[in-house]
Amino acid sequence: MGNIPSGINTPEILVDVEKLERNIARVAQRVSSQGLKLRPHAKTHKMLEVADRQLTAGAAGLTVATVGEALNFALHGVPKLFIAYPLWINESQAERILELMKRAKLSIGTDSVAAVQQMAKMLGEKAPKVKLMIEIDSGHHRSGVAPAQAVEIADAARDAGLRVHGVFTFPGHSYAPNAIDEAVNQEHKALAEAACLLRKAGHQVKRISGGSTPTAELSDNSVLTEVRPGVYVFGDAQQFELGRTGWNDIALSVASTVISRHEGSADIPRRIVVDAGSKVLGSDRPAWASGYGRVMECPEASITALSEHHATIDWPEERELPGYGEQLRIIPNHVCVAVNLVDSVLAIHPDGAVERWDVNARGLNY
Amino acid sequence: MGNIPSGINTPEILVDVEKLERNIARVAQRVSSQGLKLRPHAKTHKMLEVADRQLTAGAAGLTVATVGEALNFALHGVPKLFIAYPLWINESQAERILELMKRAKLSIGTDSVAAVQQMAKMLGEKAPKVKLMIEIDSGHHRSGVAPAQAVEIADAARDAGLRVHGVFTFPGHSYAPNAIDEAVNQEHKALAEAACLLRKAGHQVKRISGGSTPTAELSDNSVLTEVRPGVYVFGDAQQFELGRTGWNDIALSVASTVISRHEGSADIPRRIVVDAGSKVLGSDRPAWASGYGRVMECPEASITALSEHHATIDWPEERELPGYGEQLRIIPNHVCVAVNLVDSVLAIHPDGAVERWDVNARGLNY
Repeated sequence: MGNIPSGINTPEILVDVEKLERNIARVAQRVSSQGLKLRPHAKTHKMLEVADRQLTAGAAGLTVATVGEALNFALHGVPKLFIAYPLWINESQAERILELMKRAKLSIGTDSVAAVQQMAKMLGEKAPKVKLMIEIDSGHHRSGVAPAQAVEIADAARDAGLRVHGVFTFPGHSYAPNAIDEAVNQEHKALAEAACLLRKAGHQVKRISGGSTPTAELSDNSVLTEVRPGVYVFGDAQQFELGRTGWNDIALSVASTVISRHEGSADIPRRIVVDAGSKVLGSDRPAWASGYGRVMECPEASITALSEHHATIDWPEERELPGYGEQLRIIPNHVCVAVNLVDSVLAIHPDGAVERWDVNARGLNY
Repeated sequence: MGNIPSGINTPEILVDVEKLERNIARVAQRVSSQGLKLRPHAKTHKMLEVADRQLTAGAAGLTVATVGEALNFALHGVPKLFIAYPLWINESQAERILELMKRAKLSIGTDSVAAVQQMAKMLGEKAPKVKLMIEIDSGHHRSGVAPAQAVEIADAARDAGLRVHGVFTFPGHSYAPNAIDEAVNQEHKALAEAACLLRKAGHQVKRISGGSTPTAELSDNSVLTEVRPGVYVFGDAQQFELGRTGWNDIALSVASTVISRHEGSADIPRRIVVDAGSKVLGSDRPAWASGYGRVMECPEASITALSEHHATIDWPEERELPGYGEQLRIIPNHVCVAVNLVDSVLAIHPDGAVERWDVNARGLNY
């Protein structure tokens, strides 16, 4: 990654445009070569500049988590949007969705008869224009139904005059060490079973949609028709520790400044403190993670504690403690929540030019 | 807490104004009766409406974490601001601090000779107007120096023509079960020792400043002159589980909607999923916490997993699963990071009137 631009205040999120574009191209090529469509999850970046690059690289549309995110990208001209979330649509949301449908082709997730009926009631005559995607639980046990339950939802949709388009899952249990192969298998098995049962019951299944940065590159078109990775554009410490992102492919970091340093003693750790805390890095830390992120300049260092405006970094004995005012780049554990904390990032081009990119969809939680 | 206003989209942060004002009054009265000043930490709320209520209740000024937060409140007319953070001041920050000093009396934390010298260099002739507060490590081992090291920093400040005003600490190690009494003792002991050594070396110590919501109400003026609690205005699940906030005093929650529900089976938990994830609740979860927050309507329920837009809630066997579309209020684990995720909150008055309050200092990380 390029150097930290001089004269900036920290903490500040930096994006290495060269690595970003390389990640976008690599995954687009890989997914396409497997005979799959790529519908990247835009909740990771929330930026028009990144969306444009994904679409130019051949993405079939964007995936989003909320109606607000969908509106953000539709207003920018993104023509196809998949809200991969089992929305419960109230009157106010219905107005926003109808607005959205004027601008983009829309698919929406669902995992219940009740939500399908609510959608039919709230969207009225426009409801049949939505492509319904039934969410399947492939082992993560969050939202989604067992494959066998998909048919009753599809039947209810048909009865309500709605259009079932396909099935999707999120194999979130793949975000753990040595869990990826099994999660991929479960994902494919659950989706294949749901698709088979739906077809037997007379429903069309045009789209079979799988996750996710850990699993996307391991998938082919034996079951799936598309994948929805998000994090791959930037990478993060979590994906690095899972072996799904190379250290030199990580395109996003948080520029920070050393504001406190301590040589340590018998019972107090040798450490530095930098001014990047949970309010810019996010505080996600899975139990298996080595810390609250990684230091790009010193991969052996361990971020042992994170406060709102401090990261406490135990520093290796064999390395000199960085000086006061020195700037270091911290890689967040989970990049999606880090980007969502800032209104803009600094994009650094290969020639050193720096651009400010707005995080347009920041905070659009509904 | 008042009911969820009808017709809102979720997730949305709600503030119960009656409870907020009760918390502000209770702690103001308690701290004053102990002979202490109250300098509340505004990073918790970041809202002018809350700051006004704290100042009206007698706060001696506000504590903040960043120059940006200080500017936000100074522009609103708050006359005294303490940046309780060991700032490393670069040229661009110096410009902002000089701007700030035109509007408010300023104290700034420091924990090194280097930072003091940098401050003298960057602020030039205005530097002597800043009240320097030396940060002491009382056991949290984040920033701050051992009491014995305070003198060399104060000497360096005097040599550079700067004004040492006092000492402060953050007893962050009190945020754990059964850790509070010892943390209070360590806080008082470390600050007393630092103050004593500074006075012996000929320095004035006018202010001796302690944390924090867990410890503030246990403190008196035997050592301290002031306390800086933040979370007390709202309370959160973490403070409730530590026994420092009563269930009925919790003034902030996140209105959410049930979007998925599952009766469960032998190997899959009985659960609901609501649309409040880590992008509105924050993902802080100390190892000792029972989950990722609490459900106000059902304290026995357990939030076992949090994604960016989903909270997975294991639901007690003896309670009926809430219905689709039902709205529930989720109490975040750590309210400071939750508020920092939204641009505004809904403030609900005792008569049911609803106001939108801006989170003015959101995202001001530097």
